[in-house]
Amino acid sequence: MNKAVVLLSGGLDSTTLLYYARSKKFVPHCLIFDYGQRHKKEIRMAMALARKVKATFDVVKIQLPWQGSSLLDKKMKIPEQGDIDGKNIPSTYVPARNIIFLSFALSCAEAIGAKVIFIGANAVDYSGYPDCRPAFFDAYRKVIKTGVKTGVQGKNIEIQTPLLNMTKAQIIKMGMQLGVPYDLTWSCYKGGKKPCGVCDSCRLRMKGFKAVEGYIL
Amino acid sequence: MNKAVVLLSGGLDSTTLLYYARSKKFVPHCLIFDYGQRHKKEIRMAMALARKVKATFDVVKIQLPWQGSSLLDKKMKIPEQGDIDGKNIPSTYVPARNIIFLSFALSCAEAIGAKVIFIGANAVDYSGYPDCRPAFFDAYRKVIKTGVKTGVQGKNIEIQTPLLNMTKAQIIKMGMQLGVPYDLTWSCYKGGKKPCGVCDSCRLRMKGFKAVEGYIL
Repeated sequence: MNKAVVLLSGGLDSTTLLYYARSKKFVPHCLIFDYGQRHKKEIRMAMALARKVKATFDVVKIQLPWQGSSLLDKKMKIPEQGDIDGKNIPSTYVPARNIIFLSFALSCAEAIGAKVIFIGANAVDYSGYPDCRPAFFDAYRKVIKTGVKTGVQGKNIEIQTPLLNMTKAQIIKMGMQLGVPYDLTWSCYKGGKKPCGVCDSCRLRMKGFKAVEGYIL
Repeated sequence: MNKAVVLLSGGLDSTTLLYYARSKKFVPHCLIFDYGQRHKKEIRMAMALARKVKATFDVVKIQLPWQGSSLLDKKMKIPEQGDIDGKNIPSTYVPARNIIFLSFALSCAEAIGAKVIFIGANAVDYSGYPDCRPAFFDAYRKVIKTGVKTGVQGKNIEIQTPLLNMTKAQIIKMGMQLGVPYDLTWSCYKGGKKPCGVCDSCRLRMKGFKAVEGYIL
């Protein structure tokens, strides 16, 4: 059995990733993180999506009492015209978030015998977070090689980032071919009843759908 | 104010580390992890030690539902004559433990504005865990450089491992000079009323104290 750990947030990218991993004949085990995010709604969506494809999953609760992000701190404002040119990092940045997520994924992968970790990071249509960039993943691969049992035994757990260099539109096109139920995914940082349409995450999502020729929102 | 995040388990090494950081004029913020370890007792000891030196601290609860270690799984036996030659990794190894701890420390350091993380890893008198070795820390430093906001801005958070190449006896000698209250530290993996004296952690501790000339157990 070709087990893989899939980091699943319930958003557009990671849900496409889950379907991609299945299309490559992996048996996914999803990790869903409850890290105090304001848009808790994504957790329920992620659980429903994992169940939909009959994937096993863990919801891992993480405490970040030091916060340091508008995505965690309700007293801060979620930026509505965040800088997404990759030069400035918006306040929705959560310190070391993907580093923490990958560390749990690595622990899980080694414990359950999965040889691959899938993470839906994207460094094209993204908010400029450093832990979504290729240089970071290359550095993390060296941590795997040196810091865990399988790594020092030469049986490295692999990090796969199939969406890293794709545009949002390319991701959506691929997802449509894979049958991803985008109506069940959630991207909005605000986590209200309906997507706000103005946060970075909503805007990147809409940009993607608009660019998919023939797609009606 | 020279803030530093100190990873504190309540054991001999990390407590010495806390006193060392203070002697270097850092203002420590301790992170204490409740990760489902069988020896929960160390958490109470760590909290008491942080309070003793008037350091702020967070107790961070971590879930590792996949376990994969005799230090977490009560159905497994704690090895009593574990291999500590560095060739074989004993069953007390927790997949990616220090990687996870450092990831939280990094998140915390960036959020509170600490420039240094202290970790009491030791690669001399140790149980052969890969995430206690110099090569791992070197790899992790590259993750800091590429994966967090301060790193990509060239203001790297530093990992300091002052105990890495010391023997247990050297650590204890230094700690004694610093006034470390070793009677308040806890090392035993079993977490009973008294230290078992036969687990790796007890044996390494005793070896250290025996080697300190003139010290009476």
